[in-house]
Amino acid sequence: MNVDPKSVAVPMATDAAPGLAAIGDAAARIAPFAHVTPVLRSASLDERAGCEVHFKCENFQRVGAFKFRGACNAVFALPDDIAARGVATHSSGNHGAALALAARLRGIPAHVVVPTNAAKVKHDAIARHGAKIVECAPSMAAREAAVAQVIAHTGATLVHPFADPLVIAGQGTVALELLRQCAGLDALIAPIGGGGLLSGCAITARAIAPAIGLWGAEPAAACDAHDSLAQGRLIDDRVPDTLCDGLRGHLAPITFAILRTHLDGIGLASEQEIVAAMRLLWERLKIIVEPSSAVTLAALLRERERFAGQRVGLVLTGGNVDLDTLAWQR
Amino acid sequence: MNVDPKSVAVPMATDAAPGLAAIGDAAARIAPFAHVTPVLRSASLDERAGCEVHFKCENFQRVGAFKFRGACNAVFALPDDIAARGVATHSSGNHGAALALAARLRGIPAHVVVPTNAAKVKHDAIARHGAKIVECAPSMAAREAAVAQVIAHTGATLVHPFADPLVIAGQGTVALELLRQCAGLDALIAPIGGGGLLSGCAITARAIAPAIGLWGAEPAAACDAHDSLAQGRLIDDRVPDTLCDGLRGHLAPITFAILRTHLDGIGLASEQEIVAAMRLLWERLKIIVEPSSAVTLAALLRERERFAGQRVGLVLTGGNVDLDTLAWQR
Repeated sequence: MNVDPKSVAVPMATDAAPGLAAIGDAAARIAPFAHVTPVLRSASLDERAGCEVHFKCENFQRVGAFKFRGACNAVFALPDDIAARGVATHSSGNHGAALALAARLRGIPAHVVVPTNAAKVKHDAIARHGAKIVECAPSMAAREAAVAQVIAHTGATLVHPFADPLVIAGQGTVALELLRQCAGLDALIAPIGGGGLLSGCAITARAIAPAIGLWGAEPAAACDAHDSLAQGRLIDDRVPDTLCDGLRGHLAPITFAILRTHLDGIGLASEQEIVAAMRLLWERLKIIVEPSSAVTLAALLRERERFAGQRVGLVLTGGNVDLDTLAWQR
Repeated sequence: MNVDPKSVAVPMATDAAPGLAAIGDAAARIAPFAHVTPVLRSASLDERAGCEVHFKCENFQRVGAFKFRGACNAVFALPDDIAARGVATHSSGNHGAALALAARLRGIPAHVVVPTNAAKVKHDAIARHGAKIVECAPSMAAREAAVAQVIAHTGATLVHPFADPLVIAGQGTVALELLRQCAGLDALIAPIGGGGLLSGCAITARAIAPAIGLWGAEPAAACDAHDSLAQGRLIDDRVPDTLCDGLRGHLAPITFAILRTHLDGIGLASEQEIVAAMRLLWERLKIIVEPSSAVTLAALLRERERFAGQRVGLVLTGGNVDLDTLAWQR
């Protein structure tokens, strides 16, 4: 997203990557509000993957997604006078609901610009958590124009879904928790949409366990991050078509820079493999995860040799799906 | 179930209720094999229930149900020479899969008599865990005859799904764990089918926290335990018709006696309320539970006044459902 800084009256987040200290601050800041999510195991999935898989269940996080961590950190880091004017973002998904809840917990307004084609289940969640919803046409230009207008009118602070050091630091607390829960992980795999989660986790994991393998997972149908790292330039002009509605975004300069520095690689998976992995997670772990979460297991199952015998942490990012029609029923 | 003792060559379990010591022994015996399951919370479900609800997630137990605890305790308590001849049961559900896995872990045969009308997902699980399956007609008489024949031929030990002190002691470890995880619970609610889970939990909870409220939950369409306690006599001649396939059994003398002593009451819920509660659990907790688990939340929501403001523990018993057709899609 590129809101013109001249069009907004409040300070923009800087492009400096957060360090481990900022991630520790985030952990302390969100502790009164966020859940410590459990790590689940499955003997049958271990057998199928050929390694020891530790599933970090952020689908159990508040609002049903890791996004609450970053939004909560950004909202509670604001000085009182700035916070009083509220926060704003545009989102068709979990970040909107996360920002709405974080703002409600702080007692300040949240304005969320939602495109008219957003999934009903996510639109409803944004409304349920008390955000003021501004509807807009389903184009990035319309979304950015609408959020710039909201900010100009209200003085609200923009909380970007991923191109924001406070948001990245908040997401990094996932790895901080996971590494505390599972000592001696050999590798960590997380999905990549805009790259906020994996950036925060990479900074954390490299600082605590420098030798750990750090892997992204992306739908083959939305492999802009994979290609960006391969080509050494940020690709941000594609319109991906994937079931993984949380992974349709592209990297921002800050997440591109962090991931270039830290990542060992990105595994890809087909749409069919993602649906099969999602069903396996539902069946064997007895949990509800989104397609965007299942891409991690799908990528792991494609690269069994690489991770053979290792202790691998997988971040399951969210569980907000339409329960009327399941992915394998379409 | 009433296998004629004269027809079997191995010792029958006695009718003596286990005490807290036996439940502690069970906890130690199953610890190398069973999962310590997490307790989940949801702010939105607390709000809806008007109390603080702590969900004990036995759907995350091995084979996807608490049944593994009892089966594992019974299998590993057998002396080597008796164990070597194997174990047997009849089951259309989770107990069969649990006994199969427990036997495989001990390296002994398991014979499971499965009626031809068993759900495919449960039949498959029994087979996947390595049991020798004996099919029979879907009547209790046919099931009992088939298991008696297996026992006569093999010398296997019968492990009854609930009318067995070792099984009851194993199920009691659910409460032992939950009370350790959540101090100061005011009440505990668990579903009642044959009453093994609630019997074990009642013995444990009364010993550790004597003032705790102990409640069963039962489908109104299968309220034989409710009526048995109300009338002071064991009703075991009904053929209930409920979506809750785990709760179609009736009490045995041992569970009837334990529940009469310890229970404060049994809450009922309609089939419609159970499906609605199941969907709420899927949506808000992001977990997969069977209808037989959801009856606890359904009963709680019906009796909001009784539990208002309390800390309530709910046992979610299992997560083995057919993912092709969900309960609310029928």
